[in-house]
Amino acid sequence: MSLNAARGFASDNSATIHPDVLAAIARINVGHTFGYGHDDYTLSVEARVASAFGAQASAFFVFNGTGANVLSLRSACRRFEGVICAETAHLNVDECGAPEAIAGLKLLTVPGLDGKLTPELVESRIARIGDEHAVQPHLVSISQCTELGTLYTVDELRALVELGHSHDLLVHVDGARLSNAAAALGVSLSEAAAGADVVSFGGTKNGLLGAEAVVLLNPLLAHDFLYIRKQSMQLASKIWLRCAGHANAMAARLAAAVGEVPGVTITRPVQTNAVFALLPAPVIVSLQRDYPFYTWDEAAGEVRWMCSWDTTEDDVDGFAAAVRGALAR
Amino acid sequence: MSLNAARGFASDNSATIHPDVLAAIARINVGHTFGYGHDDYTLSVEARVASAFGAQASAFFVFNGTGANVLSLRSACRRFEGVICAETAHLNVDECGAPEAIAGLKLLTVPGLDGKLTPELVESRIARIGDEHAVQPHLVSISQCTELGTLYTVDELRALVELGHSHDLLVHVDGARLSNAAAALGVSLSEAAAGADVVSFGGTKNGLLGAEAVVLLNPLLAHDFLYIRKQSMQLASKIWLRCAGHANAMAARLAAAVGEVPGVTITRPVQTNAVFALLPAPVIVSLQRDYPFYTWDEAAGEVRWMCSWDTTEDDVDGFAAAVRGALAR
Amino acid sequence: MSLNAARGFASDNSATIHPDVLAAIARINVGHTFGYGHDDYTLSVEARVASAFGAQASAFFVFNGTGANVLSLRSACRRFEGVICAETAHLNVDECGAPEAIAGLKLLTVPGLDGKLTPELVESRIARIGDEHAVQPHLVSISQCTELGTLYTVDELRALVELGHSHDLLVHVDGARLSNAAAALGVSLSEAAAGADVVSFGGTKNGLLGAEAVVLLNPLLAHDFLYIRKQSMQLASKIWLRCAGHANAMAARLAAAVGEVPGVTITRPVQTNAVFALLPAPVIVSLQRDYPFYTWDEAAGEVRWMCSWDTTEDDVDGFAAAVRGALAR
Amino acid sequence: MSLNAARGFASDNSATIHPDVLAAIARINVGHTFGYGHDDYTLSVEARVASAFGAQASAFFVFNGTGANVLSLRSACRRFEGVICAETAHLNVDECGAPEAIAGLKLLTVPGLDGKLTPELVESRIARIGDEHAVQPHLVSISQCTELGTLYTVDELRALVELGHSHDLLVHVDGARLSNAAAALGVSLSEAAAGADVVSFGGTKNGLLGAEAVVLLNPLLAHDFLYIRKQSMQLASKIWLRCAGHANAMAARLAAAVGEVPGVTITRPVQTNAVFALLPAPVIVSLQRDYPFYTWDEAAGEVRWMCSWDTTEDDVDGFAAAVRGALAR
Repeated sequence: MSLNAARGFASDNSATIHPDVLAAIARINVGHTFGYGHDDYTLSVEARVASAFGAQASAFFVFNGTGANVLSLRSACRRFEGVICAETAHLNVDECGAPEAIAGLKLLTVPGLDGKLTPELVESRIARIGDEHAVQPHLVSISQCTELGTLYTVDELRALVELGHSHDLLVHVDGARLSNAAAALGVSLSEAAAGADVVSFGGTKNGLLGAEAVVLLNPLLAHDFLYIRKQSMQLASKIWLRCAGHANAMAARLAAAVGEVPGVTITRPVQTNAVFALLPAPVIVSLQRDYPFYTWDEAAGEVRWMCSWDTTEDDVDGFAAAVRGALAR
Repeated sequence: MSLNAARGFASDNSATIHPDVLAAIARINVGHTFGYGHDDYTLSVEARVASAFGAQASAFFVFNGTGANVLSLRSACRRFEGVICAETAHLNVDECGAPEAIAGLKLLTVPGLDGKLTPELVESRIARIGDEHAVQPHLVSISQCTELGTLYTVDELRALVELGHSHDLLVHVDGARLSNAAAALGVSLSEAAAGADVVSFGGTKNGLLGAEAVVLLNPLLAHDFLYIRKQSMQLASKIWLRCAGHANAMAARLAAAVGEVPGVTITRPVQTNAVFALLPAPVIVSLQRDYPFYTWDEAAGEVRWMCSWDTTEDDVDGFAAAVRGALAR
Repeated sequence: MSLNAARGFASDNSATIHPDVLAAIARINVGHTFGYGHDDYTLSVEARVASAFGAQASAFFVFNGTGANVLSLRSACRRFEGVICAETAHLNVDECGAPEAIAGLKLLTVPGLDGKLTPELVESRIARIGDEHAVQPHLVSISQCTELGTLYTVDELRALVELGHSHDLLVHVDGARLSNAAAALGVSLSEAAAGADVVSFGGTKNGLLGAEAVVLLNPLLAHDFLYIRKQSMQLASKIWLRCAGHANAMAARLAAAVGEVPGVTITRPVQTNAVFALLPAPVIVSLQRDYPFYTWDEAAGEVRWMCSWDTTEDDVDGFAAAVRGALAR
Repeated sequence: MSLNAARGFASDNSATIHPDVLAAIARINVGHTFGYGHDDYTLSVEARVASAFGAQASAFFVFNGTGANVLSLRSACRRFEGVICAETAHLNVDECGAPEAIAGLKLLTVPGLDGKLTPELVESRIARIGDEHAVQPHLVSISQCTELGTLYTVDELRALVELGHSHDLLVHVDGARLSNAAAALGVSLSEAAAGADVVSFGGTKNGLLGAEAVVLLNPLLAHDFLYIRKQSMQLASKIWLRCAGHANAMAARLAAAVGEVPGVTITRPVQTNAVFALLPAPVIVSLQRDYPFYTWDEAAGEVRWMCSWDTTEDDVDGFAAAVRGALAR
């Protein structure tokens, strides 16, 4: 694809930095300050992020989502402990083995339902406690929203957290898109994370400049985190902002616009900023000539369309028209 | 210290992002593109960086200096291989054990002379080859310029590289400040790295926005680097620029200005953008009230002053006057 | 259970050291020799083991099966590479996460059929080649015989090896019970491993004193193995022997004896020295009072009975009678 | 050297298994029992070993000294914590980088005096507490007796333990030859370890069959050790015995016999079962034709002679005569 790729639906990572973010950086880009996250800007933004998750929470900026996830795991687990997660979890399929190679941890996967864990699925991996030949489950990792764009209700999430805690397991929320989840549920970030012990909180996908954070809601995890972050090559200074509700609204608009086109089948509940759909293979190829987006499942003909903070109504309507046109041919 | 710390000499990390960099980011911050370093901007900047190091070189952006160093080591060594470096190397003292914990490698340290290795020092650790009880030396890591602000001449560096290669060792240059070294030596970046196999090339300390690169001059190391970068949580997109000569000039000006003040002893050759000096302890304390800088060696009373791309002549002259004043009291 | 546990069927690890082994150790237990595997005894036994696997093979003793497996993986893979294996593989379920924590590798599991891989199952994980976000498959690990007592025919194994090699994957055989497999197939050890690149070759379960070996059939893997073994804390001197055919025969006898008892269902093909069966829960509990054996699947009521080099016909017949008696009550 | 190497002084690892050990193994080598260290023999021996170190201690057998050391470190430290030890420590020079590669820990070395730490040396590395860029010291590792055959008095050791504890550091004793130390000091094993938190307790060098133990005197370390041992590939069953006083006596006899021979200089205090001496190079070569022993420092002409549980007075006297003869030529 060309240098200035068309405004497509490939990934919410393809959007630019939000102009307000760049403006804010330019505004504070004067004078000297301390590096390594000890400047007052970073400290005050970290404090604001933390306070969104409760009085006991602390927040630490890292570079990217892989970093946030792997450092969350390192803060919670020792190397003989295991992490229960869905097979579809980003942790399991898209980190190039960092949980295993860098944190040294085994993932105890379950199949998942549209990317979601259930108490029954989690319980199926709470086994062999005290058996030295088996990794000991210590953390449940839940993606809110999931990699398939689905959502946990606050009650569903709370049930998983309670189940975990009742078995002395800690709970991690991979919140790369937690803002989208909160916006979709109409709740605060804190409620969207529902009592978890540690959250990977994503900013990059919402227009920030490489800003992801690890939020430690469980104060017992905070004691050593500075060392883990530095040693894990994730120490810098960063800032934060958010504009997630709009992306969700655009996904809903897109699903509505294409969902009734003959030949298009929406395959997953559209609950946040992702739309999954089945299309005939030649239609996919033809659309991808003008609009970047990913084929999710080649064999099934399933595609994924992501909306971003900067997706416009015109973007959505134009694309829906293109889908209709391609199917009509 | 206050939110807008005075323009001190604590670290070249304390300077802001160079305004040209922010402007360049703003200029390209439109439309959509591919994430994860596959956008044309990143690819073309990586190609430009690589070409500065020769036709066979390839360059990969990472987040920070720790990342550049640890990934350089991971690309060159397996876990039973060792890295010969100076005791003062940043790798050894300031990475919170990342070389050991993340790359799994033992550092084979030697004392160093003003932070520099010599062929004799390196040869003293090329021992026990073929002895399975000992880590096998595989990489020599040299800081250009060193953590003490000293420089290798091109000939000195070439001699180390030749020594390493004659023993089948690879050579790494920690070039967090390679631009300062090149500017001080009056040579190209490529000459300042003198045939090394892999270079940690730093941009952050020269006004960039978190831009560090691993440059692989030895093409055999490039094959797997994309996986190592992703797994090591260092994959993003970044851009690059440089303005190192000015920082060196300001350090020379500072050394000249304070070097003849009674009570100040310059302790290391001032060859790049660092000045090390001995001062009476109460003078240090008094100066630090207004100017941030680090005490390097508490017991000896040795301090370090770093100049940046944005250090002005007025900054230097004002500080020199303050030193003179404090000593006069 | 008491100090001298009854002669049960818990594990082929429960049997004693073969008396011939102890006698052989006593015979050579005079004078001095070199430690760390450089004694002539160890070297000559390693050479004999290696020669059983072909002229290019080399063998290295390690302490236990976990060590043999993890070191096989370390010799074949770098940390961004993945290992395709069955979900039931010992590697995946019974090493307390050592492949992940010590070798730093992700296991790419498939469900397996009675513990066996098929070419189709392996191919389903050869995906995302060249995608830096995904672990790159590099090794197929096959258990011969499997953890469920089933066997690969030589043709089945050869097909898997050919599939792997055609995709540039290496092949590992977890041969903790390879002697039992060879005896059951009536072929040599070399044929039972069918062109694999690396074999974990087990001796402990056949009456040896903690003797397991890594056999490197692919000479490219041998170069660095001494360092990997020492660093992985697996260097000592050991000796080897084998008596596997008898154990298989006893398992066949046991299956025949209990297979027709009403209330007993044999659940897996009895191909080596393991018998799996369904029994009513109270019968299991009652039998375990006198005979140690493991419940394999609590929910289903499935148990596992292992025969050893020292299982006698009387042991089998007595136990079969006890099963019959317990079910009659 | 030939298959049945002469009875030399290369290493206390070269001696055979003590015949009483083999006899004891043969005596219990009947019937079945549980594997993986859960048999009554292992449990009762582990309890006996533990009780030698106090009522709160627990003991766990591992395979070898590298395993005991690395597992001691893993039980005590997280990966951002450092281990203060002497440069000459076996941990630092003879484990092929296992502390770094397997435990992920940085060693903070000090020069040592004849292999011994002093409170001043330890204090020199208790620095940068709370600085996230530096590994945080967490464990002091002391070899008793040292790799140079020297000993800590009980008072010296106690002072180091108290210093460590006063700084919230744990203390590890590498006791590969702790029995020799206890015999030389005329104190119990417990006194020879003087309040350390964790001890690598060696049996192999005293005639045992690969029996080394990790003894956890600090009960806080015991909770997770079973998982660490299994995951670190060090789980098996083993037995224990000891006969160290004799080896020390033979070393004293050897030192006395050769110490007054013109041309021989004893270079280290002979406090346990090692003798270090300077000899002319041709004499070393000539002696090594008949007696295996190691050259410790090629440049200086320093050799090491180790005595074992099976070194006889005749062995010593014959060797001393050979030294005398070689020097006379």
